[in-house]
Amino acid sequence: MHLITRRPTGSQAEKEKDEDFEVDWVLLYDLEDIEAHHATDEYHTLIRDIETFGLETEVRHGYGTTLIILIRIPRNKLGNEVYRSRVKDWLFGIIDVRPLGDSSTVVDAATPSEEIRSVFHLVTWTKEQGGAGVTANFGRWKHVTASFAPHSWTANKKLLKRLSAKIILEADDLDQIKALFGEKVAFYYAFIQAYSLFLIVPASCGTMFWLLSKPYSIAFGAVVCIWSITFVEWWKRQELDLGIRWGVKGVHALKVNRVQYTWEKEETDLITGEVKKIFPTHKRLARQLLFLPFAAFSSFALSSVLVVTFLAEAMISDVYGEALASYWALKYLPTILLAVSLPYVTEFLTSVATRLSEHENHRTNDEFELAQVQKAFVMNFATSFLPLFLTAYVYVPFGSIMLPRLIPDYWQLHDAAKDLRVDAQRLQEEVISLSMAGQILNFGEEFVVPFIKQYLQEAYRRYKDAKQGTSLHQRMHSEFTRALLADAPQEVSLLSRLRAEAVTPPYDVQGDIMEMCVQFGYLAMFGVVYPLMPLGFLINNWVELRGDFFKLISESQRPPPIRSDSIGPCISALEFLTWLGSLSTAALLYLYRDGEVTNIRLDHLLLTVFVAEQVYLATKLSVRFIFDKIGSEAVRREEASRRLVRKRYLETFSEEVAGTSVRQSAFTYAANHKRSTPSTPTDPEKRIHLPIIPEVEETVSVRSEYKTEKAERFWNARKEIMGTAEAGVRLIVAIKGMQKTRDGDSGDKSKWI
Amino acid sequence: MHLITRRPTGSQAEKEKDEDFEVDWVLLYDLEDIEAHHATDEYHTLIRDIETFGLETEVRHGYGTTLIILIRIPRNKLGNEVYRSRVKDWLFGIIDVRPLGDSSTVVDAATPSEEIRSVFHLVTWTKEQGGAGVTANFGRWKHVTASFAPHSWTANKKLLKRLSAKIILEADDLDQIKALFGEKVAFYYAFIQAYSLFLIVPASCGTMFWLLSKPYSIAFGAVVCIWSITFVEWWKRQELDLGIRWGVKGVHALKVNRVQYTWEKEETDLITGEVKKIFPTHKRLARQLLFLPFAAFSSFALSSVLVVTFLAEAMISDVYGEALASYWALKYLPTILLAVSLPYVTEFLTSVATRLSEHENHRTNDEFELAQVQKAFVMNFATSFLPLFLTAYVYVPFGSIMLPRLIPDYWQLHDAAKDLRVDAQRLQEEVISLSMAGQILNFGEEFVVPFIKQYLQEAYRRYKDAKQGTSLHQRMHSEFTRALLADAPQEVSLLSRLRAEAVTPPYDVQGDIMEMCVQFGYLAMFGVVYPLMPLGFLINNWVELRGDFFKLISESQRPPPIRSDSIGPCISALEFLTWLGSLSTAALLYLYRDGEVTNIRLDHLLLTVFVAEQVYLATKLSVRFIFDKIGSEAVRREEASRRLVRKRYLETFSEEVAGTSVRQSAFTYAANHKRSTPSTPTDPEKRIHLPIIPEVEETVSVRSEYKTEKAERFWNARKEIMGTAEAGVRLIVAIKGMQKTRDGDSGDKSKWI
Repeated sequence: MHLITRRPTGSQAEKEKDEDFEVDWVLLYDLEDIEAHHATDEYHTLIRDIETFGLETEVRHGYGTTLIILIRIPRNKLGNEVYRSRVKDWLFGIIDVRPLGDSSTVVDAATPSEEIRSVFHLVTWTKEQGGAGVTANFGRWKHVTASFAPHSWTANKKLLKRLSAKIILEADDLDQIKALFGEKVAFYYAFIQAYSLFLIVPASCGTMFWLLSKPYSIAFGAVVCIWSITFVEWWKRQELDLGIRWGVKGVHALKVNRVQYTWEKEETDLITGEVKKIFPTHKRLARQLLFLPFAAFSSFALSSVLVVTFLAEAMISDVYGEALASYWALKYLPTILLAVSLPYVTEFLTSVATRLSEHENHRTNDEFELAQVQKAFVMNFATSFLPLFLTAYVYVPFGSIMLPRLIPDYWQLHDAAKDLRVDAQRLQEEVISLSMAGQILNFGEEFVVPFIKQYLQEAYRRYKDAKQGTSLHQRMHSEFTRALLADAPQEVSLLSRLRAEAVTPPYDVQGDIMEMCVQFGYLAMFGVVYPLMPLGFLINNWVELRGDFFKLISESQRPPPIRSDSIGPCISALEFLTWLGSLSTAALLYLYRDGEVTNIRLDHLLLTVFVAEQVYLATKLSVRFIFDKIGSEAVRREEASRRLVRKRYLETFSEEVAGTSVRQSAFTYAANHKRSTPSTPTDPEKRIHLPIIPEVEETVSVRSEYKTEKAERFWNARKEIMGTAEAGVRLIVAIKGMQKTRDGDSGDKSKWI
Repeated sequence: MHLITRRPTGSQAEKEKDEDFEVDWVLLYDLEDIEAHHATDEYHTLIRDIETFGLETEVRHGYGTTLIILIRIPRNKLGNEVYRSRVKDWLFGIIDVRPLGDSSTVVDAATPSEEIRSVFHLVTWTKEQGGAGVTANFGRWKHVTASFAPHSWTANKKLLKRLSAKIILEADDLDQIKALFGEKVAFYYAFIQAYSLFLIVPASCGTMFWLLSKPYSIAFGAVVCIWSITFVEWWKRQELDLGIRWGVKGVHALKVNRVQYTWEKEETDLITGEVKKIFPTHKRLARQLLFLPFAAFSSFALSSVLVVTFLAEAMISDVYGEALASYWALKYLPTILLAVSLPYVTEFLTSVATRLSEHENHRTNDEFELAQVQKAFVMNFATSFLPLFLTAYVYVPFGSIMLPRLIPDYWQLHDAAKDLRVDAQRLQEEVISLSMAGQILNFGEEFVVPFIKQYLQEAYRRYKDAKQGTSLHQRMHSEFTRALLADAPQEVSLLSRLRAEAVTPPYDVQGDIMEMCVQFGYLAMFGVVYPLMPLGFLINNWVELRGDFFKLISESQRPPPIRSDSIGPCISALEFLTWLGSLSTAALLYLYRDGEVTNIRLDHLLLTVFVAEQVYLATKLSVRFIFDKIGSEAVRREEASRRLVRKRYLETFSEEVAGTSVRQSAFTYAANHKRSTPSTPTDPEKRIHLPIIPEVEETVSVRSEYKTEKAERFWNARKEIMGTAEAGVRLIVAIKGMQKTRDGDSGDKSKWI
């Protein structure tokens, strides 16, 4: 557990506090593919852009050919951005109470995530939007390969401790996650927690059915279907409640344009006077039509791979099983082929999907993400569920007829091929292996592999750096450069952490959500095959939730705390899966009603599925009707408090009128005419006091001190000798020189130093 | 056309203006079933309630044993109620700009409907809600049999003229309807207009298919299905736009409790401090479960009636057709039986439905209406579509097998019964007769019959009143009473109009909407049978729209201008019908694919319907997706103007800050702390000026003069002699006396006078 101990634990916690160097944001600048003089030019521009914008910078060398640029935002600027952001929320109707202040007001962020969101905006937004315009991996700054806020280790550790101590995350815990990582991440945890709790119902029913009844029980099928419909409808309402709790309802309205967005014309809004950048809707819709051929093509590509390996496997195990008994290794050939080829196909398709989504030219990141998720869902659907569909609806019922026809006569070595009967048991095996074992494999792939990978990379880097470091120091550098290349003792821990974070992948919350969707799909569509499945999922999710949190804090870059008022487009995927689930469950219950597939009549099958679909629609409507009737306490409270804000506002005016202008009031009553409120000298807003963010901040809180002595020393010590620009240039020269030496080119670099 | 000429036309229009006696509201008090002394007591209470509340009253005698109580609202009170209503709108977030004023502000209503809505509230709301508490036909006031605003004849005529001159109603015209009759009525006209315009597509396609192709064309079926899905989805968005245009978006949030609502406990809202009357949701849900047996029972009852007559008709025409040729009258027997029995069954079921809805104890009228419409839809569905379903799916395909079995052997007089073949043509005949001829019959039933009925009743009353009038005047009345019984010459026209209005039924907009839903259902489900159907509907609707408007202004009481942000619960019925329509169209296309029903395979039929349902779901999703992508200009504008209101508000504050407190601002910047806005002496609201109701009032406008000489004479002339209370008592005695005389009882009444 080297990675963990590397980060301070236990008694070091106190020391940790002192290690807060007030680094707000980190950029990683990679010199690998750029000429030294181009690099210095670009670097100069970058630093100038950031410093002109009013942010403080520092530079250190990173792993290999990279520079780490540290950014600190002056509190005035940050506080003002937090205030502006709140005003914007108010303008767009996301909060009801106007934040008090004027254009130069400075406020403290309520949570670290609010603070870091503002930092994120200040660094990455274009100058037009009010930021420094540094967008990693895009346009001018394509050599900036990472852009992230450093993890707050103290808070992470506290939160991990807090979550580990609990069996069930409560609303407070989710609030803490939200306070540290933002709403989007918190929504994922809320979802997985709610989903797991809901899983208790089918898990206990399933265990009962597994003990007492045969598989393919109609009762269990009904439980699963009703449960899945109820869960999805409930979650949609829960999202609303959480959105209100976290004050993010309708937040998608104020999402800014993506930097990649191109527009055809600019239009000034007649009402607000805002300039809008417009790309015609019909053009985008036409481009989105490309989704259909993409879906068809990717389904086809993935299914070809899957069908071929599936058939090969079936043939080898069922047809030639005995004949090939001696070549047992052959049995694993199809699986190995699949394991080798699938990643290539998927990678290719993903790159096509991304290019398509880019081509669709979405205005906001939310819309872009929706387009991406749609495409990812198609691919996930094919890879995850196609083998099961093939087994359930093609191979088991028709395998005995089809397989012999597919095999050329001269291959039919054995009589087995002729009187082949495919066992219905095979579906159950396939379901267990894909859904249950899949989860465990997935866990390994998701947590263990990156962990080992990270460890090995780290070890290799240390070894390399140690070697390089020596060579670097041995070279004829000026004294300054030598000082730059060595980490100051008090910074060693910070820099080693930041260097590690800079090379970890960004946290992809959408991927984790999609994973849960796929799990939900297994249950909704094939849960009836193996009643223990929900129990397995329940246990898996208990681990998964904690594992994901561990992954988030120690194997990923801190994600920018983007706001969101839902788990995103995956909710549509869930609805689709409940629908398909009800059809699939009904079909399975009919086909496998006797434990094996006999006596299938197409009209009966169709009738079953048809009736199931109508029952599904009716159930969904009823569940919605009931939930609507019950309503949401959070929504009611929100409406009430919005009303209260206005009411108090009104009362304020009325009181004033009553107190100060009785004469006027009497006049109005007689005059029978419209009348404007008399000018009164007090500001009514001051009397309206409602807390904007009513959270209890236990574990996670914003930095209370600022400009500590330690931090000031860190940010100012070198400034006296040279600016960040100069320090960076020296580092670039040193690193490029080293790179050239390594590459065998030993040109003269001393003139640069 | 006596009814029309009775109301002033042409050159009388000028005179009309002078006939405005400023009657705001009318109550009809019926003495028929109440003892004279009880009546005087009740009447006294009623007048005292109204007058104590601050409204002016007058009394006149109505038709038969009724009194007409006229109410005028002092403009101060009315204007204040209009203001309060707007404030409430603002509190509930229906409008964004706070109406300026205090608790005693008086404003002019923007439209007659806004004015009359306030009048309606003042008269009918309970004292707790801020009204006089006069609720017709309920509780204490069950003898108040009508409660309505008098029609504004001048405006009605102008509007009728305006609408008659146009082929298509535009948004402006709808605005005018809204201004006169309120949003709920206007939504109906918006709907029928939009629906008719949409009908042009299937009407023109249908005509083409009728000319060029066979019936049961797959292409036409697809057109109808896609059209119906598109229309319903489009309309849902159009409702939103209109709701924004008319400023009623979300208006359901502020609906008051029904007077019939009973509650189990009162709870004080912790946030707003409002007292809420709560009836547990689970109890209401449990009661609503009774809908299921009701739906089953009413479907069963209606279908029994329909099936029996249907079979009888089928037997008479198809089986014994030739044998009974001589008894031709027998052919019409089933239809006559149906015509006689159906109204009884329907009436009984409607009364059960109403009692059920009452039992469900809904809090608001909207919810009550939803419950009623659900039940009405079930009944309408059975009566309108069941005969067609029977013909299409039972009689034509299976009639030849079933009918002979249903008939006892000894009845089988003829061989025809044995080798009976039901012609597929019969479905088309049935569709034409029910949908097309039905519309015409309906028109007669809706407009002509009431018209004649009204005319005859009117004539009878005149005859009776003439006789009674004489007897009334011949009796020994005091001079005062005699003066009361005679209409003053200047009031004759007003009173005759009010008396006529008092006995007409209230306008039921929901019924008209339901009629359109049924029409839409015919088209969606059976349009493929007869491609000319949409053309017929298009023509029908052109007439229907104008006929409905005529009915509204001359055969109905003026409806209270209730607000609404949609056509109400019927939108769900429309969605249901598109769904069923796509299944039905697919099934019909399969069954009747060769123009007759042969060679039916159940699995093929099921497959067709199953595929159709999936295509339906996919189409609906795609249409929604496209409409969502296109978005709504009105919604965008609304969001923009809401933002603008807040922005201006903000700017106002910023300017003030910039101008008046530079020192403070500088301090803030340095101090790094949250800061409240400095108190500035100007009221920011005054600078925000956005028109609340941006309508162009051409045809319809509110009364510009008030307390004209003529009106003052009307309202004050008698007051000098005696109050409304006394006048009413004298009228009661006179009328009761007359009633007794008529009933043959000639007791001594002179002591009462």
